[in-house]
Amino acid sequence: MKPSEDRFDDLAEGDSAELAHTITTADVDHFVELSGDRNPVHLDSLYAARAGLGTPVVHGMLTAAFVSTVLGTMLPGEGTLWLSQRLDFLVPVRVGDTVRIRATITRASPGTRVVVLRTEGRNQRDQLVMDGEARVRVLRLAAGA
Amino acid sequence: MKPSEDRFDDLAEGDSAELAHTITTADVDHFVELSGDRNPVHLDSLYAARAGLGTPVVHGMLTAAFVSTVLGTMLPGEGTLWLSQRLDFLVPVRVGDTVRIRATITRASPGTRVVVLRTEGRNQRDQLVMDGEARVRVLRLAAGA
Repeated sequence: MKPSEDRFDDLAEGDSAELAHTITTADVDHFVELSGDRNPVHLDSLYAARAGLGTPVVHGMLTAAFVSTVLGTMLPGEGTLWLSQRLDFLVPVRVGDTVRIRATITRASPGTRVVVLRTEGRNQRDQLVMDGEARVRVLRLAAGA
Repeated sequence: MKPSEDRFDDLAEGDSAELAHTITTADVDHFVELSGDRNPVHLDSLYAARAGLGTPVVHGMLTAAFVSTVLGTMLPGEGTLWLSQRLDFLVPVRVGDTVRIRATITRASPGTRVVVLRTEGRNQRDQLVMDGEARVRVLRLAAGA
C-alpha cells in the first residue's frame, strides 16, 4: 500500500513497532552528562552492593528515552507530539542488557488525532523490565512550500 | 538537625526540592545522539511550522530527564530507586526556556519505604509545562566496609 497523504490514516489498532538497543557504559555516561543525575545506585558498584542491588542499575529515564525514539521515529513516527506517558520500572536494567522497546496502538481517535499505545520494554531474557502507556497526538501537516 | 543514619527518617510529607535548567541546543543534540529520536518536530523549523507548532519543541523526555536528577540527587536523593512515573506534557518547551523541576513528597510509607512525589515542571513564565507523579523506593544501606 502506498502511504496516505495524512499519516494518521495509516494507523490502526494493533499496529506495533519495536527497537532494540544494547545499553553501554557510554550511554550511562551521556545520560549523566545530560541530566546531572549522579545517584550512586547507577554509578557506584560498592554503593549498589550496599543498597542490595548487586550491581549498579541503569537510570530508568535512560531506558525510557528509547520510548521517545520508537514513538517519534517509528510508530506513529514523525509528526508525533507526546501528550502523556506512564512508566512502570519493573526489573532493573544493567549495562550490557539488550532492551527491546515495543509500542502497540491500543486506540486511535480520528476526531482528536490522539493515539494511545502500550509501551513495553523487555530484556534479552524476555523479562518485562518496563511497562507503560503513551498518549500522543499525530500532527497534521500543512501543504509544503 | 543532623541527618539520621537512615535517610528515610529525614523525609516528611510536604518536603520539596527544585532544580532549574535552561535548555540549550546542545542538550537537544545530546538527547538525539543518546536516543536516536530525530522526530522533525524537535529539529526542523520548517516542519514544525507546517505542523502548526510555530518553532521546534524540545523532546518531552529531555525535560523529564531532570525529574530523574531531582529524585536521584536531591529528594529523596542518593539511594532512590524509581518504581513508576506519570508524565503529562502540558505546554511545549523550547530551546532557551528555563525549566524549574520541583518534586514534593505527598506520601512516605515507612513499612514499604515507598515515597510518592508530585513532580512539576514550570517555565520562566511560571506555566506548568509538565505535571506528574513519581513512586520511588528509598534503599536501605548495609553498613559500609
